[in-house]
Amino acid sequence: MGVMRLGYVHARVTDLAAARSHYGDTLGMRLVHEESDRLYYKAWDEYDHHSVVLESGGVGLVKLGYKCQSPDDIAEFENRIQRFGCITERMSKGENLAVGDGLRVVLPSDHVLELYADIEHVGTETGTLNPDPFPRHLVGVGVPRIDHALITCEEPEVLERFFAECLDFHASERVVTQLDDGELLGSWMFCTNTPHDIAFIKGPNGKLHHFAYYLTDWNEILRAGDLFAMDDVSVDVGPTRHGITRGQTIYFFDPSGNRNEVFSGGYITYPDFPTITWTADQLAKGIFYVSRELNDRFTTVLT
Amino acid sequence: MGVMRLGYVHARVTDLAAARSHYGDTLGMRLVHEESDRLYYKAWDEYDHHSVVLESGGVGLVKLGYKCQSPDDIAEFENRIQRFGCITERMSKGENLAVGDGLRVVLPSDHVLELYADIEHVGTETGTLNPDPFPRHLVGVGVPRIDHALITCEEPEVLERFFAECLDFHASERVVTQLDDGELLGSWMFCTNTPHDIAFIKGPNGKLHHFAYYLTDWNEILRAGDLFAMDDVSVDVGPTRHGITRGQTIYFFDPSGNRNEVFSGGYITYPDFPTITWTADQLAKGIFYVSRELNDRFTTVLT
Amino acid sequence: MGVMRLGYVHARVTDLAAARSHYGDTLGMRLVHEESDRLYYKAWDEYDHHSVVLESGGVGLVKLGYKCQSPDDIAEFENRIQRFGCITERMSKGENLAVGDGLRVVLPSDHVLELYADIEHVGTETGTLNPDPFPRHLVGVGVPRIDHALITCEEPEVLERFFAECLDFHASERVVTQLDDGELLGSWMFCTNTPHDIAFIKGPNGKLHHFAYYLTDWNEILRAGDLFAMDDVSVDVGPTRHGITRGQTIYFFDPSGNRNEVFSGGYITYPDFPTITWTADQLAKGIFYVSRELNDRFTTVLT
Amino acid sequence: MGVMRLGYVHARVTDLAAARSHYGDTLGMRLVHEESDRLYYKAWDEYDHHSVVLESGGVGLVKLGYKCQSPDDIAEFENRIQRFGCITERMSKGENLAVGDGLRVVLPSDHVLELYADIEHVGTETGTLNPDPFPRHLVGVGVPRIDHALITCEEPEVLERFFAECLDFHASERVVTQLDDGELLGSWMFCTNTPHDIAFIKGPNGKLHHFAYYLTDWNEILRAGDLFAMDDVSVDVGPTRHGITRGQTIYFFDPSGNRNEVFSGGYITYPDFPTITWTADQLAKGIFYVSRELNDRFTTVLT
Repeated sequence: MGVMRLGYVHARVTDLAAARSHYGDTLGMRLVHEESDRLYYKAWDEYDHHSVVLESGGVGLVKLGYKCQSPDDIAEFENRIQRFGCITERMSKGENLAVGDGLRVVLPSDHVLELYADIEHVGTETGTLNPDPFPRHLVGVGVPRIDHALITCEEPEVLERFFAECLDFHASERVVTQLDDGELLGSWMFCTNTPHDIAFIKGPNGKLHHFAYYLTDWNEILRAGDLFAMDDVSVDVGPTRHGITRGQTIYFFDPSGNRNEVFSGGYITYPDFPTITWTADQLAKGIFYVSRELNDRFTTVLT
Repeated sequence: MGVMRLGYVHARVTDLAAARSHYGDTLGMRLVHEESDRLYYKAWDEYDHHSVVLESGGVGLVKLGYKCQSPDDIAEFENRIQRFGCITERMSKGENLAVGDGLRVVLPSDHVLELYADIEHVGTETGTLNPDPFPRHLVGVGVPRIDHALITCEEPEVLERFFAECLDFHASERVVTQLDDGELLGSWMFCTNTPHDIAFIKGPNGKLHHFAYYLTDWNEILRAGDLFAMDDVSVDVGPTRHGITRGQTIYFFDPSGNRNEVFSGGYITYPDFPTITWTADQLAKGIFYVSRELNDRFTTVLT
Repeated sequence: MGVMRLGYVHARVTDLAAARSHYGDTLGMRLVHEESDRLYYKAWDEYDHHSVVLESGGVGLVKLGYKCQSPDDIAEFENRIQRFGCITERMSKGENLAVGDGLRVVLPSDHVLELYADIEHVGTETGTLNPDPFPRHLVGVGVPRIDHALITCEEPEVLERFFAECLDFHASERVVTQLDDGELLGSWMFCTNTPHDIAFIKGPNGKLHHFAYYLTDWNEILRAGDLFAMDDVSVDVGPTRHGITRGQTIYFFDPSGNRNEVFSGGYITYPDFPTITWTADQLAKGIFYVSRELNDRFTTVLT
Repeated sequence: MGVMRLGYVHARVTDLAAARSHYGDTLGMRLVHEESDRLYYKAWDEYDHHSVVLESGGVGLVKLGYKCQSPDDIAEFENRIQRFGCITERMSKGENLAVGDGLRVVLPSDHVLELYADIEHVGTETGTLNPDPFPRHLVGVGVPRIDHALITCEEPEVLERFFAECLDFHASERVVTQLDDGELLGSWMFCTNTPHDIAFIKGPNGKLHHFAYYLTDWNEILRAGDLFAMDDVSVDVGPTRHGITRGQTIYFFDPSGNRNEVFSGGYITYPDFPTITWTADQLAKGIFYVSRELNDRFTTVLT
């Protein structure tokens, strides 16, 4: 039991029309609901009502929603989180469109996290009866699902302890300034069998570095890059390999400047998996394995 | 908490020398220990002491080992399994080389299942400090890890109920004779976020259909097939796509006739994932999506 | 100078409506012209007016067109072909829609071959000014171009000599019954730098084994196979590797029973390339490298 | 008849031992001959004696060798080249190790070009009898063959005219400052059916931008990048897509600073292929399609 996955990313965008073109036409998400000031999107291989909410006005993260297996999990997590010293509030069915009762938490990093066990079931585009491996007529990249988010915080070791102690996450990889008594610069944590369901690196509290979509493989990563060029999407870095997670990646920006990622590959993780350590002198290799270079934009542009 | 993964497959082989060539040179597993009548292998991306044990004499499955997160899980599972009506016995550290205390179960299908929470930690070949994404000089296919096993049984619905009720597995996909009141012909079940950690199809009790290795992608699948041709490995079917799991596959035989699989891809699963249903009239498409044909060998050769 | 490529395949189909669905919707060729009894298709990365002509009534090959660099080539080839003893006739602009003057030849194998240097230029779908690597909205497989044809003949050694002596083709690979004084069973010949622009194997005169489309890589081959399953296209063999040419392949049938292939990879050839020899005992490996098995259908179904 | 391919690249390196590690261990070429001041390498899928010669002392290009189909081609080319106004000299068998008689030309760009029709035949590592698609135990990247070179020159239009008029090359793509009466900034030319056997961009005479190895596909490109990271090879740009040629690429440097490329994909070309035009405002997209950015290093570092 416990947290199952990153369920939704709720972000701000400066321009809903431009966002619609990016998330709908280029990434190929399906618009499931719209209001005057916000858009709700789901990806084709997701069952739940939505996975991305875009709200007009500004940039950056409004909140992240993580879906839990049962309401009992949430009650247990509420206790642990309060003992940890974080502010929580109960949220009611309907506060978020299509989402049931849950718990809203202000993380030690000032990010808002929502835990819920119930959201309207819409279904994937291939269905559950003798399904094809993919729908016939996807648009653009045709992202199948969201995967993880990377946020920044002033005290990564506190946030890592929060996710481990309160939510049973495990660290797959950590970056430290040095091996002995080094300071924690970043942590990649999982509650599934993937290398990361959330990650954080040292930086200002409350900021979003990126949120990511999963793609099938390295060929799909290049095809995404090709479509980004055709649609004039601003690309940050990639395609390339991550040392951390072993995944393959392109970082790019939505029209409002929020960083997105398409990610494929990555090893399988288990709770008994020993945490991998990267030392700061190898950080560039850990992030961009092939070039072993970090650009300024990658480390400084946050929303 | 609970079952983490398929930890080891213990199988019989008629010829240890031929098995050594197959599992060592062609598949590229590392021989970690040998005795006069058995060989212990691990794959390069596995941390634990071994994942395949080959015992001289005959063919087929001796037992499957699934690693649990803690001894408490095992105690809980023991209660549930006894209530389910299966025979269990406690096994002690050392009964299996490098494996700690645990529980041995005779499944309703007559297969032997071992549950354990402790096995000697050896480590992967890339290590946990600033690791490369793969070791430099792999041999043959260079399989990174084992993935799942498919066994046959007379009563799939009983075995499905066993894994669900006793071990908290979920069914990702099921094959039924027909939609309404159809008989269950097969079930693919997971305890991780993969499409299957164990699967079973209707057939004689106690038999092995295949056990599988995970490969990174479709290109690695072809490369494996090329190496099988070079090394004169008997190929059953593939490379092709599975409808069930969406994975990519080659089935092949070890020199003793035990069926192996190399498998890549497959979607992510979660406990709230609705089970996909295949009807028997679409079974061939479910198994081999591209050809939509089952060969006799695939459905009849078991060990 | 000389023959540049396979320019068009003109085949018979029993049902134009079914053919339209197959070549247009599944393969994604563009219908450039239609008449009451025939359809003209081009692929997206081809410049010339058409590459496939489908004529109503029966099955099999009407003729193959190979484009030459200049009318002078054709005059020279005419001399050589007449000396070789084959029947030729001049064909005039307009006898074939959009095709200029040329030469029609009845091969020693009774197939009809047309040589021409001029055909209406239509252009690719990405154009010649700052082009994208592929068009944004392809349909189905989205084949970029035709690649080669394989025909059967009673005397492969005569046909090989014809293509070498009359048209300056070279044999990349040959299959012989045995190494010393073996009989020629098949030959793969090129006029480009690909492994084959035409191939022939021993069989009845005048028959078509298949004609092939080129795809970018092994991933595109699987995607084609997936679409064949979705569109209920009859698949003969594949996806797999060829030993001969090293290419990757799926063989499949159009609704009339003409065999098509999607093909990727294959090495580069040059005129000084030594011919590779396959002995008949290794033929199955040469054709289907992974399985090393030939099915009856593959060797007996011709149109 | 005519020029068949880029046969060899003869370059200077500052350090033979470091070069041996790079070209032998990382790229996986085979050392076929060595002398006190030079190393001769061939790639596994090449038949000829060598394709890369590394000479101690300095950096940059000593000369390029292009293999022609026959001595008659060379005699014809000699006439044309002399009429074009370039200096030529006959070279004798043995002047270059394993290479026969030929012609040495000083190009209008001051680069030295050698034309020859005869070089010692060594054979590929898979042979010509029932060959496997690749050798079993390649080292490092395991490059199969060299592909093309890109050089700089003050007057691209003169060099383009030289290769077209004297050697029957065709331009697949050209970069011009603007569409009407624009100046030629670069040209990609072919004598095979590939997008380029030589290319040149505006810059100083006599300089090398890079020479390239062909890899099978985009997955091999990433694997090469991974190995470059493991072996601490300096990477310039990539992995990414080229707009020009549609190929996939990583640019990197040998230990002496000569730029190499691994290249895959690219469309097929024919002599009747219309030349694609890129305008300077789209040059960055033409070179690096995904990022649409040129780094300074890429445009300024030459050897």
